[in-house]
Amino acid sequence: MGATGNHLCFDLVEESQKRNPGASICAPEGVGGFKDAAILQDYHVLPQFRNAMAKFMGKVRGDRVRFDPDRIVMVGGAAGAHEIIGFCLVDPDEALLVPTSYYPGYYHYLSRRVGVKLVPIECDSANNFKLRMEDLEAAYEMAKQNNIQVKGLLLTNPSNPSGTILDGDTLRSIAAFTNENNIHLICDDVYSAGKPDYVSIAEIVDEDRKSGGSNSLNLDLIHIVHSLSKDMGFTGLQAGIIYSYSDVVVNCVRKMSSFGLFPAQAQNVIGSVLSDEEFMVELFLGAKTGIPAEKRRSGGRNVKRFFSLLVSDKNDGTVLFKSCLVSRY
Amino acid sequence: MGATGNHLCFDLVEESQKRNPGASICAPEGVGGFKDAAILQDYHVLPQFRNAMAKFMGKVRGDRVRFDPDRIVMVGGAAGAHEIIGFCLVDPDEALLVPTSYYPGYYHYLSRRVGVKLVPIECDSANNFKLRMEDLEAAYEMAKQNNIQVKGLLLTNPSNPSGTILDGDTLRSIAAFTNENNIHLICDDVYSAGKPDYVSIAEIVDEDRKSGGSNSLNLDLIHIVHSLSKDMGFTGLQAGIIYSYSDVVVNCVRKMSSFGLFPAQAQNVIGSVLSDEEFMVELFLGAKTGIPAEKRRSGGRNVKRFFSLLVSDKNDGTVLFKSCLVSRY
Repeated sequence: MGATGNHLCFDLVEESQKRNPGASICAPEGVGGFKDAAILQDYHVLPQFRNAMAKFMGKVRGDRVRFDPDRIVMVGGAAGAHEIIGFCLVDPDEALLVPTSYYPGYYHYLSRRVGVKLVPIECDSANNFKLRMEDLEAAYEMAKQNNIQVKGLLLTNPSNPSGTILDGDTLRSIAAFTNENNIHLICDDVYSAGKPDYVSIAEIVDEDRKSGGSNSLNLDLIHIVHSLSKDMGFTGLQAGIIYSYSDVVVNCVRKMSSFGLFPAQAQNVIGSVLSDEEFMVELFLGAKTGIPAEKRRSGGRNVKRFFSLLVSDKNDGTVLFKSCLVSRY
Repeated sequence: MGATGNHLCFDLVEESQKRNPGASICAPEGVGGFKDAAILQDYHVLPQFRNAMAKFMGKVRGDRVRFDPDRIVMVGGAAGAHEIIGFCLVDPDEALLVPTSYYPGYYHYLSRRVGVKLVPIECDSANNFKLRMEDLEAAYEMAKQNNIQVKGLLLTNPSNPSGTILDGDTLRSIAAFTNENNIHLICDDVYSAGKPDYVSIAEIVDEDRKSGGSNSLNLDLIHIVHSLSKDMGFTGLQAGIIYSYSDVVVNCVRKMSSFGLFPAQAQNVIGSVLSDEEFMVELFLGAKTGIPAEKRRSGGRNVKRFFSLLVSDKNDGTVLFKSCLVSRY
């Protein structure tokens, strides 16, 4: 099937590239920068790239929240991002709770690679695979009774493969649960772009910070995994992202990213594209500014349209069927 | 200090880029290939890239041996390459023998990351830190007496930091030892380019295959780790290489490379450079064909000159001092 990534904006990317040839260390306009990129081996990643990525991540969430560029850690790919965050937070034979059904890659990235146990939280098709608090609590208790040390909850929202999206209240309850039990909350929101009513954990955190209540969330326990593989279809460019609200975790995963650094060559190119205002406007709004109408694209070539096709508005589990439709575009 | 990579050929690389703009997925001539590169997520890596890399690896060894492109596994960086080969060959708390002094990164890549014990083989400055068979045998026996399960020997040749290069006879003896004791031989030859009298493990293997004797080496135990960080100074492009004579190991490390795939963008660019005959001639011979004399470079801008500065011909331990000199170029 192979259509989980957005293939509908490559024409926009190509146009952006043509507008900004100096960003490429291989194009004549930018080849003078080849050496600097070729020798750059810094897991901090170029600041201008992180700034562009932070802005993009905010845009993906409808500009309802802002991301701190200094909390962004780039890793060579989403698989590497999951493996690294698992390695840093969970010891071998400790566990992460994971709602079912879940992405089978987690077994490889976390269990086989790092030795993390995955404890399933059974979700039912009868309620569209939505995670219920009673199921989360039951799974956690069962793990404790079986002497399984649970270190966190791994949440994919929207879910892969069901497409189910959690509403804000459920997300708040989940965050309160993990906070109360002092376990980590890792949110994989790789499919989050393009849904106007999507609530991200970043918004829950923001809301909590502003409320300043006595039961404030311990932000050292909250982390986000993202990538450009879905929003942008950049599977081959290996742009995995870890965003953590914990300074210690940021520091740790940043060092661990040495095992699969995000190359400078890609930083230049992707940073240029994400900093291109014209590209961003067209990507998220579907209308180009200053481009003649006859050159505008039709047929759903932006993030919102792609994801409205991929994820059913009714959360009725039709994501697999619809992704077949998308693959024909 | 920071001069362990060859910074003397970037001008040649830039010229190659200008000659072959279509190789860049960001230059106008090549941007049409952006999508294919952006969505490529195949740990086999482009065949044309592996062909170019195999040819380059042969050139680095003076064309005295040929490499099979199908045994080349690309990983995002040398650190990742070491970690992956360690993960695949050695279980936690098992050990690798390592001649001293050794690259301190091995401790991070192998011990801390994978849980591999590093058992030192003491080498002495009195004989230029050359590995002696009696010291290798003694270290192996001591490990056995202490119930340490030794799975292999990790050899860096030329050595980092001493610069010591092993002669062919010593290398043959080492290979015979690891073969006899049924342990792996992992050769990190990242600094091997440019020394005319350098003998690589690949030549020992080749020689052994041709002799076809009754004590032939078990090739399933022999593996090479390499990268383009030193020969080409491409530290930031994260081109780590694992080359194994074992089909099982090739298959295993290839799958593991999923955690830090070598991006298609870099495959296009580096593959183009390594396939550029003019570049290869200038890099290894220091003479351009068809280029007017007034445009030829002077002052040591190719691999041989770089490494003749970096590694003392006398193996007298002056590598650190000379690398200071190189850093001023």
